[in-house]
Amino acid sequence: MNDQSLNGIAGLIYDGIRQLPIVSPHGHCDPQWFADDTRFPDPAALLIQPDHYVFRMLYSRGVTLEELGIGAAKDPRDVFRTFAAHWHLFLGTPSRRWLEYSFREVFGLDVPLSVETSDLYFDEIALRLRQDSFRPRALFDRFGIAVLATTDGALDDLAAHGKIDAADWGGRIIPTFRPDSIINPHHPHFADDMTALATLTGTDCAQFPEYLDAIRQRRAFFKQMGATATDHGVTDLQTAWLDADTLQDLLTRALAGELSGLEAARFEGHMLTEMAQMSVEDGLVMQLHVGSRRSTNRALFAAHGPDMGADIPQPVNWVTGLDALLNRVGNNPALELILFTLDETTYARELAPMAGHWPALRLGPPWWFHDSENGIARYLDQVVETAGYWNLAGFNDDTRAFTSIPARHDLWRRGVAVHLGQQVARGRMGRSDAADMAKLLAHDLALESYRLGG
Amino acid sequence: MNDQSLNGIAGLIYDGIRQLPIVSPHGHCDPQWFADDTRFPDPAALLIQPDHYVFRMLYSRGVTLEELGIGAAKDPRDVFRTFAAHWHLFLGTPSRRWLEYSFREVFGLDVPLSVETSDLYFDEIALRLRQDSFRPRALFDRFGIAVLATTDGALDDLAAHGKIDAADWGGRIIPTFRPDSIINPHHPHFADDMTALATLTGTDCAQFPEYLDAIRQRRAFFKQMGATATDHGVTDLQTAWLDADTLQDLLTRALAGELSGLEAARFEGHMLTEMAQMSVEDGLVMQLHVGSRRSTNRALFAAHGPDMGADIPQPVNWVTGLDALLNRVGNNPALELILFTLDETTYARELAPMAGHWPALRLGPPWWFHDSENGIARYLDQVVETAGYWNLAGFNDDTRAFTSIPARHDLWRRGVAVHLGQQVARGRMGRSDAADMAKLLAHDLALESYRLGG
Amino acid sequence: MNDQSLNGIAGLIYDGIRQLPIVSPHGHCDPQWFADDTRFPDPAALLIQPDHYVFRMLYSRGVTLEELGIGAAKDPRDVFRTFAAHWHLFLGTPSRRWLEYSFREVFGLDVPLSVETSDLYFDEIALRLRQDSFRPRALFDRFGIAVLATTDGALDDLAAHGKIDAADWGGRIIPTFRPDSIINPHHPHFADDMTALATLTGTDCAQFPEYLDAIRQRRAFFKQMGATATDHGVTDLQTAWLDADTLQDLLTRALAGELSGLEAARFEGHMLTEMAQMSVEDGLVMQLHVGSRRSTNRALFAAHGPDMGADIPQPVNWVTGLDALLNRVGNNPALELILFTLDETTYARELAPMAGHWPALRLGPPWWFHDSENGIARYLDQVVETAGYWNLAGFNDDTRAFTSIPARHDLWRRGVAVHLGQQVARGRMGRSDAADMAKLLAHDLALESYRLGG
Repeated sequence: MNDQSLNGIAGLIYDGIRQLPIVSPHGHCDPQWFADDTRFPDPAALLIQPDHYVFRMLYSRGVTLEELGIGAAKDPRDVFRTFAAHWHLFLGTPSRRWLEYSFREVFGLDVPLSVETSDLYFDEIALRLRQDSFRPRALFDRFGIAVLATTDGALDDLAAHGKIDAADWGGRIIPTFRPDSIINPHHPHFADDMTALATLTGTDCAQFPEYLDAIRQRRAFFKQMGATATDHGVTDLQTAWLDADTLQDLLTRALAGELSGLEAARFEGHMLTEMAQMSVEDGLVMQLHVGSRRSTNRALFAAHGPDMGADIPQPVNWVTGLDALLNRVGNNPALELILFTLDETTYARELAPMAGHWPALRLGPPWWFHDSENGIARYLDQVVETAGYWNLAGFNDDTRAFTSIPARHDLWRRGVAVHLGQQVARGRMGRSDAADMAKLLAHDLALESYRLGG
Repeated sequence: MNDQSLNGIAGLIYDGIRQLPIVSPHGHCDPQWFADDTRFPDPAALLIQPDHYVFRMLYSRGVTLEELGIGAAKDPRDVFRTFAAHWHLFLGTPSRRWLEYSFREVFGLDVPLSVETSDLYFDEIALRLRQDSFRPRALFDRFGIAVLATTDGALDDLAAHGKIDAADWGGRIIPTFRPDSIINPHHPHFADDMTALATLTGTDCAQFPEYLDAIRQRRAFFKQMGATATDHGVTDLQTAWLDADTLQDLLTRALAGELSGLEAARFEGHMLTEMAQMSVEDGLVMQLHVGSRRSTNRALFAAHGPDMGADIPQPVNWVTGLDALLNRVGNNPALELILFTLDETTYARELAPMAGHWPALRLGPPWWFHDSENGIARYLDQVVETAGYWNLAGFNDDTRAFTSIPARHDLWRRGVAVHLGQQVARGRMGRSDAADMAKLLAHDLALESYRLGG
Repeated sequence: MNDQSLNGIAGLIYDGIRQLPIVSPHGHCDPQWFADDTRFPDPAALLIQPDHYVFRMLYSRGVTLEELGIGAAKDPRDVFRTFAAHWHLFLGTPSRRWLEYSFREVFGLDVPLSVETSDLYFDEIALRLRQDSFRPRALFDRFGIAVLATTDGALDDLAAHGKIDAADWGGRIIPTFRPDSIINPHHPHFADDMTALATLTGTDCAQFPEYLDAIRQRRAFFKQMGATATDHGVTDLQTAWLDADTLQDLLTRALAGELSGLEAARFEGHMLTEMAQMSVEDGLVMQLHVGSRRSTNRALFAAHGPDMGADIPQPVNWVTGLDALLNRVGNNPALELILFTLDETTYARELAPMAGHWPALRLGPPWWFHDSENGIARYLDQVVETAGYWNLAGFNDDTRAFTSIPARHDLWRRGVAVHLGQQVARGRMGRSDAADMAKLLAHDLALESYRLGG
């Protein structure tokens, strides 16, 4: 459908960036897809069952997860029919925009999806998925992806990344170091993963200094395997800087499973500051994703585990939350710390002023629910005036839905073009500056802020 | 005046919905008006003295309540003159839009209101109010109201509703069950109303299980009288689920007036979960209006009581606040729980993600101060992308100003048309889908989500 | 550059107000400039080194303060070159708009600023600064400033103001009474300033009633010197009303430096209520600037002191925060209390409803980071519908960057014109009302709400 907001200057700006290579410095694609390059299974398994954006909406209007073949065997064709029968629920959502884009641009489908066309869609997509040109590597190449970062547990052996590197294929897929399970004592896998960390690194992780060394070893391994960044998920942000005795005591009791919620948070808060300091040492960019309360639906969590669409954003206080970390390393331009929020009230109130002051900070793009057309508009409207453009980190798609990657970057590029078109129309900058800013936001800033090289 | 935002597609969409019947599933009209069908008194008593939207603004710029005949005898003509002399204060407010609409559409006045025309307005409106065609039932019919829900205390005998039902008149006016005074131990009428509840139901309300039964009796009575919904006003939301001993202890001490603020809140928090469970049993839709700090002006409250324009919104945390309730009944699609907030920061951060996940939830329309043109635009911009349209509950006018009902629905319909016109212009949906969504938002969703039948 | 948002009606509205005299009732210009009327030094000292809006942005992208000659000697020409080399960082920010306006309108520069034109800019500005027509008083006259208020410590002898008054020059420059250091026991200068207050007023400030009298004396002196307002900076707002014994105890221990953070806050909270009561007595307008967490970068504070760009906004609760004060004096229309927030979430949720109720309240314009084109649009969109226009206080520039004053008022006037143009286009008011509101917002409200006379 025609987008009138891309008439005029905005359209010219968009034309200048729409075909730039995709830089995807943060996301959740499975590296195994590209290591093995096996075909994706059926349309439901590709588009519906793994995408919590999609099944949460169906669930919210009374469709059971069983009907979708989640946690239950179900004919994929029937799953797709159920989805098609509820396609109207997605009107006005980015999920619908992403899927429409994929249907049209990736699978060549141009009839509207409905109950009547459900089987046609299913068959056509299934047919394509059996073709070599729809294998993961071929799609990666077709999508014009310059670099794709995955997100990997700190103990991961990165074998899939090794296999990709060794393959006769030019795609650049790099890991990202995610140590939540070894720095947050209340992470469900903390006990197991601390044992594994000790084994893997040959270190006595019960001693705080050696525990830090073990983490340094893992970071070095990730860096050697191509990583340029770490990533950290935190519900309630409260960084800290504690003394050695306190830390040893907290670590000892953490390993014994004896920490209170508050003590665990203090330990994690200190460890985030350690992570920032290690980033100064080893140059890995640090990402902080803050404020999602995970798995708020306990029955669903008990039955199906995490990532079932019940993660809900919470308010965040970035000023007090980052105080300890920033006052240790925030003045150091060698640190690149990229912040992601789900609390839009912090865009103009806290994040833009902070990014517009601290040399170490950049703001990540709109995250999750806010990675949408209005979300992008609100973000640019609220952060640019105080932080400018160079304190931003460009775009991330943050997706585990591989075929949506081009759609998401396209939506960002449209949003950027609309924003910059308005800036020109309002007399805030000339066309030449707007064209430069467009390229910066669509491509260059992601490369630069994630240190993805020339 | 001409509204350029309704040029083009938006105007076509608006034309398709402007004359749909009015569904008014939540509000504060007095059922006695329609039971007795007596004439409304003078213009001041109709338009100024009962409307806290109106007199709060006059009060804020130094007009005393006495000058307005509130809590003091005053010639209605003089009251109207004072109002007219301050008409400029309302420029840019929805109150002015509603009143202008009423003056023009209901009373046929098309000269501008001013000090000079004040008496003309007063005389003309007074003249009309003496005509039979301006009695409550005639206006109800003229406004095209399909159904109107009132809000009624849990102990109300609903005699007015009975009289309406028995009358030779087709208007559908139904009660809504509002039990605040018997579930919140710190409600000013709690002690009296608990005594009355026991008497009315013949139940020993000092025993927790029997107390629940008494409430069930009242709900059944309301349902029998046509109610399809309950309504709950809460300042600080914190639902809970407590054990039987704790509940009995809290109830006993509540009846003795011995609960601390925290204990009263825990009891109320538990009772909200009980109300949700009863809604699963009896099918009454549950409405939660959260976050108004009532009567913050203590001198005014002491002199004039509640609803004097000093109720001010407060931040709400819906995630923690609804945790206990939703984890008991939120996965049950038989529950219809409609949420209303005065804290717009929760639209995109909490409410849309929650409504886009939990089967039981819908979002109510913009409430109170936010029931305005910009408020409607902000609401649709912030909730639709994450919750879609079907997780919304359509529109409520929530008014005690009867003649403003058509004006308020008209403003919502304009806002819906402007929003959908933009969706079409941005290429987010086609014209046919937009026309369907318009009808849904203006009419169908209110019927469906309040279970108001076919 | 041409601003298309000022086409049509908005442009006509703007033309009607662009040349109105400037009313600047709150800001941080140094009265000594006008007392002595000495030339401003070099371009760096005028435009870069004193402006934390400017140097914070450079600092955020790795420019050191030393490179900017802040806390270090540096050739001003080199400082200006460093600034010019980073001019792109300001794209999209109000700082760039203000500076472009000053370059063009004040200094007549119409080539774009760049590394190549840096010396040209420097030389041209330096040349002008040596001319008599660029001395402070001449610029003040040229800018069309009707009245300018400075902000002055409670102990200031206001000698500069005296010298201005005695001069053969018609410029109206008035002081504002800022007593933070004598009412907040945790203010860094509290101990010294309380001693000075006692000496200056010949009062035993260790006795609470006499301490209040001493403050009254200072207020009277400011008023005699032309002040019409006081100003108060508060981080965490919590007004209070305490009894005499508690107050004497807190004062005694405050003077001994023994108050905890909580006790100091209670004392300050009470004193704000006293200030409001004194405003009722003496008629000085009271301003409250709430919610900036000052000097969050401790290394920078240790090296350079306050105002280094590390003041970051925090959430504010105005309802509970003002409860004690408003319930003592908020119903008194003789009090004029103007509120400023950095927490935009409070515009629609708290401030507009409060200003639309309490006779004493007005809302100040968008403050600091929010004094920007989008910030102005968000403010008008969110406050007008609930507070109307007459509960606002017009515009303040709040600047210490003298040459930016016309630029800031111009940006506000453009924002007002765009807003009112939309109001007309949306059919919310007619052209004549819009023209009236424009004059009100651009000029009259500032005069009236600050009691700056006829």
